[in-house]
Amino acid sequence: MPRITAYRKAHFNAAHRLFRPDWSGEKNQEVFGKCNNPNFHGHNYEIVVAVTGEINPETGYVIDLGILKQLIRSEIEDAFDHKNLNVEVEEFKTLNPTAENICVLSYQKLRKHLPDSLDLEVTLYETPRNYVRYSGK
Amino acid sequence: MPRITAYRKAHFNAAHRLFRPDWSGEKNQEVFGKCNNPNFHGHNYEIVVAVTGEINPETGYVIDLGILKQLIRSEIEDAFDHKNLNVEVEEFKTLNPTAENICVLSYQKLRKHLPDSLDLEVTLYETPRNYVRYSGK
Amino acid sequence: MPRITAYRKAHFNAAHRLFRPDWSGEKNQEVFGKCNNPNFHGHNYEIVVAVTGEINPETGYVIDLGILKQLIRSEIEDAFDHKNLNVEVEEFKTLNPTAENICVLSYQKLRKHLPDSLDLEVTLYETPRNYVRYSGK
Amino acid sequence: MPRITAYRKAHFNAAHRLFRPDWSGEKNQEVFGKCNNPNFHGHNYEIVVAVTGEINPETGYVIDLGILKQLIRSEIEDAFDHKNLNVEVEEFKTLNPTAENICVLSYQKLRKHLPDSLDLEVTLYETPRNYVRYSGK
Amino acid sequence: MPRITAYRKAHFNAAHRLFRPDWSGEKNQEVFGKCNNPNFHGHNYEIVVAVTGEINPETGYVIDLGILKQLIRSEIEDAFDHKNLNVEVEEFKTLNPTAENICVLSYQKLRKHLPDSLDLEVTLYETPRNYVRYSGK
Amino acid sequence: MPRITAYRKAHFNAAHRLFRPDWSGEKNQEVFGKCNNPNFHGHNYEIVVAVTGEINPETGYVIDLGILKQLIRSEIEDAFDHKNLNVEVEEFKTLNPTAENICVLSYQKLRKHLPDSLDLEVTLYETPRNYVRYSGK
Repeated sequence: MPRITAYRKAHFNAAHRLFRPDWSGEKNQEVFGKCNNPNFHGHNYEIVVAVTGEINPETGYVIDLGILKQLIRSEIEDAFDHKNLNVEVEEFKTLNPTAENICVLSYQKLRKHLPDSLDLEVTLYETPRNYVRYSGK
Repeated sequence: MPRITAYRKAHFNAAHRLFRPDWSGEKNQEVFGKCNNPNFHGHNYEIVVAVTGEINPETGYVIDLGILKQLIRSEIEDAFDHKNLNVEVEEFKTLNPTAENICVLSYQKLRKHLPDSLDLEVTLYETPRNYVRYSGK
Repeated sequence: MPRITAYRKAHFNAAHRLFRPDWSGEKNQEVFGKCNNPNFHGHNYEIVVAVTGEINPETGYVIDLGILKQLIRSEIEDAFDHKNLNVEVEEFKTLNPTAENICVLSYQKLRKHLPDSLDLEVTLYETPRNYVRYSGK
Repeated sequence: MPRITAYRKAHFNAAHRLFRPDWSGEKNQEVFGKCNNPNFHGHNYEIVVAVTGEINPETGYVIDLGILKQLIRSEIEDAFDHKNLNVEVEEFKTLNPTAENICVLSYQKLRKHLPDSLDLEVTLYETPRNYVRYSGK
Repeated sequence: MPRITAYRKAHFNAAHRLFRPDWSGEKNQEVFGKCNNPNFHGHNYEIVVAVTGEINPETGYVIDLGILKQLIRSEIEDAFDHKNLNVEVEEFKTLNPTAENICVLSYQKLRKHLPDSLDLEVTLYETPRNYVRYSGK
Repeated sequence: MPRITAYRKAHFNAAHRLFRPDWSGEKNQEVFGKCNNPNFHGHNYEIVVAVTGEINPETGYVIDLGILKQLIRSEIEDAFDHKNLNVEVEEFKTLNPTAENICVLSYQKLRKHLPDSLDLEVTLYETPRNYVRYSGK
């Protein structure tokens, strides 16, 4: 039976720093450049969550986007919005908060709330010109 | 031989209401909330039509986008633009006009005009934050 | 003392019809064309509210945008979102809901909640290509 | 003689915190809410610089936008991009980095490099929904 | 009586070259740089036409945007779209087609079709980051 | 092991003409219409380069987007920006510069600089409404 994908876009504003505590300052600077500023910088992140499945013939929905909106709020916005990712998000205390890692973590946080019949893909915009996409494949 | 996808974006403005005539008012309200307003609300829908195939070595085109533009006009815009989807579109008299169902219907209306050698995918934006994608797979 | 302008953008989705009950169907059709569809059509309206005044030296704000956001919600979104403007908004029962008239009404609804020391300007997008701006001047 | 305005858009990513050191933590929290997070948050700021003057009949330019681009780079981007505004920008050590104050400071930094015959206006986007504009008037 | 502004956005794609025939190649290169390429380059120009006047109490319009759309088509799109501005637009055979000069010419071409009771302002985007605005003042 | 995609967006402004030298003027006009203007027209092209691979556990990157940015600059922007594609790009002297062909050529120019472990996809926007995507499949 054919499947359709429903997308919901949200955003959060956060500070971060690219950096590995097990590397020297020189190596962090060489690899991460200005993104390694120890005083942090920040972004208006945009996140697009895509859920794929069969259309429910009762409702005409793949998923109620109002429910998806709430799930993004509780799992992503409440955790990341107006936060310092390195300092205040448990997972990023030991994981470099690159766009890739933020995207994978967002995928993992959402995945566990969705039934197996639904596929998930997460796109994370760090800026309008730099973004990443992950679907667990 | 490698394939390429050509995209054409169009739009239409329409009124709609999410609602099942076989459900009670309470159930419609519970499932569809404010989208169930019996007086209708509306959207500036954006549609992106993607056609995939081999490049024609004569023209350098997958498909003449001028022809695709006309096809979108006759099949989608003429049918949906400045219309009340529930009241004036035959198919939605018995089908709930969710973004999913509008997208699938748009796919079906376009699919029959395209040769089998071309794949089709339709993305329908109900708002910049809510959208769906269908490719018949 | 120099003045600065703070802007807050919001949106609402609504159905409407351009039409004058005191005109014949022919005249309504001639003047308003497809916008006169008696079954209604709709839009994703975007509204940008601009407030101009001196920066409060205490806070560094012209106006707390969180307060402006709430004011837009209570005066504009609660009144217009997911509504049929002609049928459900008192003022448009006797006033044609053109972008111009929606913009002026939005201005009037917001103006009375703002002190005289602040100037107000409202921009209303009916579509990304058609929009209007009003500042009471 | 008629005047024309030329606009140049640029951007920078920065961390900041809204906060007054002379206020208690409670008062900072009450007035600035989540923007007062002591660990900082951040934004992709967009800045639009508008310069108004007569068209130079020799070149057909108001101002060479390549020169304006360099001026924005040296005065704004070099000072703010990938920085913590509170910690690393001298002016914001004693001035709350609200959008309003960042906009006025940007205006002042650019104004002194432009001849009196040119008017200047600066628009600063903190997010696509929150922005401010200043022209020294 | 208060006035309101109605905006209509359109676009055209054109080739151009910045260049003065009375200057040496060296001087053209020095002043206009890569924009002086003798083989031309091009842009997707966006134009926003703003018309200000009193709301017609009969229609609720400042100006019928359908009429404005047609005027932009006949005066601007038909003249500039898919054209080489330097070679095919009479006025630019002796006038450097900078964004400023395209904007002023567009203003002049539209101005003569509008009654004196309406103010006109034209914004011309050469790129999303470089644009100009002219209102005859 | 799961793979992630990193995207980098860039742009270039160029003139072009759709045309086959081995066809008559009549046939070129019939097939390519106004895009066949012998004096050229032009576009602000946007290009999105997508690179898919495993996240490097050392850096948290699929690919350093700064390196990808430089690669796009040297292979795409330096070759196409502010150029006449038909006249100044070697490959388009014998290949019609349709969006499809520009996209495939961009893919080929980038592909040879990337290791086999990374997948590549290129999206080329000729206008915001017309675009193409190619991934070598």
